[in-house]
Amino acid sequence: MVSTPAVLGLDFGGTKIAVAVGDLSGRRLGATTLESRASASTNAGAAEAMTRCLTAARELLAEVAPDHELAGVGAATLGIPYDDRVELAPTFPGWGELPFGRLIREAFPDVPVRLATDVKAAAEAELRWGALTGCDPGLYVNLGTGLAVAIVAGGTVITGAHGASGEIGYNLRSTADVYVDADRRTILEHVVSGQALETTGTARLGRPVTAADVFTTARTDPAAAVLTDEFVRELAAHLANLAIAVDPSRIVVGGGLVRSWDQLEPGLRRALDAAVPFPPELSVARFPTDAPLIGALALGIEAAGVDLGAEAFA
Amino acid sequence: MVSTPAVLGLDFGGTKIAVAVGDLSGRRLGATTLESRASASTNAGAAEAMTRCLTAARELLAEVAPDHELAGVGAATLGIPYDDRVELAPTFPGWGELPFGRLIREAFPDVPVRLATDVKAAAEAELRWGALTGCDPGLYVNLGTGLAVAIVAGGTVITGAHGASGEIGYNLRSTADVYVDADRRTILEHVVSGQALETTGTARLGRPVTAADVFTTARTDPAAAVLTDEFVRELAAHLANLAIAVDPSRIVVGGGLVRSWDQLEPGLRRALDAAVPFPPELSVARFPTDAPLIGALALGIEAAGVDLGAEAFA
Repeated sequence: MVSTPAVLGLDFGGTKIAVAVGDLSGRRLGATTLESRASASTNAGAAEAMTRCLTAARELLAEVAPDHELAGVGAATLGIPYDDRVELAPTFPGWGELPFGRLIREAFPDVPVRLATDVKAAAEAELRWGALTGCDPGLYVNLGTGLAVAIVAGGTVITGAHGASGEIGYNLRSTADVYVDADRRTILEHVVSGQALETTGTARLGRPVTAADVFTTARTDPAAAVLTDEFVRELAAHLANLAIAVDPSRIVVGGGLVRSWDQLEPGLRRALDAAVPFPPELSVARFPTDAPLIGALALGIEAAGVDLGAEAFA
Repeated sequence: MVSTPAVLGLDFGGTKIAVAVGDLSGRRLGATTLESRASASTNAGAAEAMTRCLTAARELLAEVAPDHELAGVGAATLGIPYDDRVELAPTFPGWGELPFGRLIREAFPDVPVRLATDVKAAAEAELRWGALTGCDPGLYVNLGTGLAVAIVAGGTVITGAHGASGEIGYNLRSTADVYVDADRRTILEHVVSGQALETTGTARLGRPVTAADVFTTARTDPAAAVLTDEFVRELAAHLANLAIAVDPSRIVVGGGLVRSWDQLEPGLRRALDAAVPFPPELSVARFPTDAPLIGALALGIEAAGVDLGAEAFA
């Protein structure tokens, strides 16, 4: 008897880890999520999180695809993943030193594995099956705990010479930042991200708030509205310059903060119209909160040797 | 007798127009240049410049390739060229209304024609035969009368959804510029370009100077050094953010201002090292001043139906 192939998608974030099992057409057979339990005080949480994830993946495979053969694994993560480490992942202590690709390959011997940065996996999902289909070029923007983008061109996600394209969280905020090392300046992500809004909001509003709380409060509270106005203005400045450089047909926004899209969209739209010679379309992602996981499934399918058309995931 | 094929390359700039005839391997058989004679007071100069260029091209073909059959024409220009107009070419009065592609096609009936923005043609030349060979991604920066870049990825120059990628001369300079129309703010090109340096230099140094003069004077005059320091700092801020977004393996700089490369390079190098997670290489273009013309020849060869390898132009 020939068993049906299945693929595994993993998405490692600083807050949660998502696991999904799918078939070769991208149809999801089952999914589960775990807490990341990143700890500021110890690096041990990183290895422990990976172990829990791999156990959960095996259990999910056994549960939803018992008769299937695992044909490919796609793994998305915060940071830039390699077999022996993860670069640019300072928010998850210990994650950088984890032999990321190797641990996953060892867990599933003889199964092809593809790795990607979470935001690039998300862009992959939107390009194959979502709001970036047919866009050349296009931009995917992730407004989550952190800030990053992915550039899509020629039907593919631009990886960059070191896998680091799109990491605009490191952007300079003004000419005063020129010549100053990233760890000695306030990088863009420290001001424009869910994490940043939570920190600033908690400090300025005088009570613990999430980024979503700040947007909700801003509907009625002028002090909170100042915060969200500043946030949108600075995000818009960097998106506008990126849109000028890339000339995308569309910018697609995903990540947790798009729950406040009605408060983000008008400012971003106005800024793009004023700044960009040929203003791009602007919309919410098709998979605003789980695009990296869906992208990981797409990578798993590609790892299995299947050429993904735009038809799948109908 | 079968005649040998030749191609024609045209490069229209605001100051001069360059014409070259080459063979299908990219070897140059002859070249000539004309003054653009752009006039601030009349649009008539645009059509007149095109007529003079086409006449010069015919004469050059007759002179250096009398027995050759014209197999393709490549035309590079300031602005974004179309058959019936040129977008984003405000510095050459009348140029925007010129039926650019149509005039060239009519001049050479039945010969295939390719059009491109000058900076993208330059990047094409560097990608095929110059300093961007094998770079994926790579950035070409033009520091000439104006300011623009081209992004190279996947072995091709990214055109953009409207042919306008790389037009960073329109960049916002700070968050104060957000929501302000381009014609009501000081765009980046008004501060960082050869033209800008000439204007500012002439005003601040109290005598008529070219951009090259400002750099030369800056070697000994602190007032001029302030100007070039500001120039390099602001250029570096935008290049650094672009390099963060693209993650190029190399940035290549062309255009007239690279004559002052020893005064540009240290600041740009230091800024990239400080800002970009994986700092790219930085070098002068292989064809620093005539890359658009060489790129136009490459476009002419491609128009002739020849698949250009990286081997030509050895």
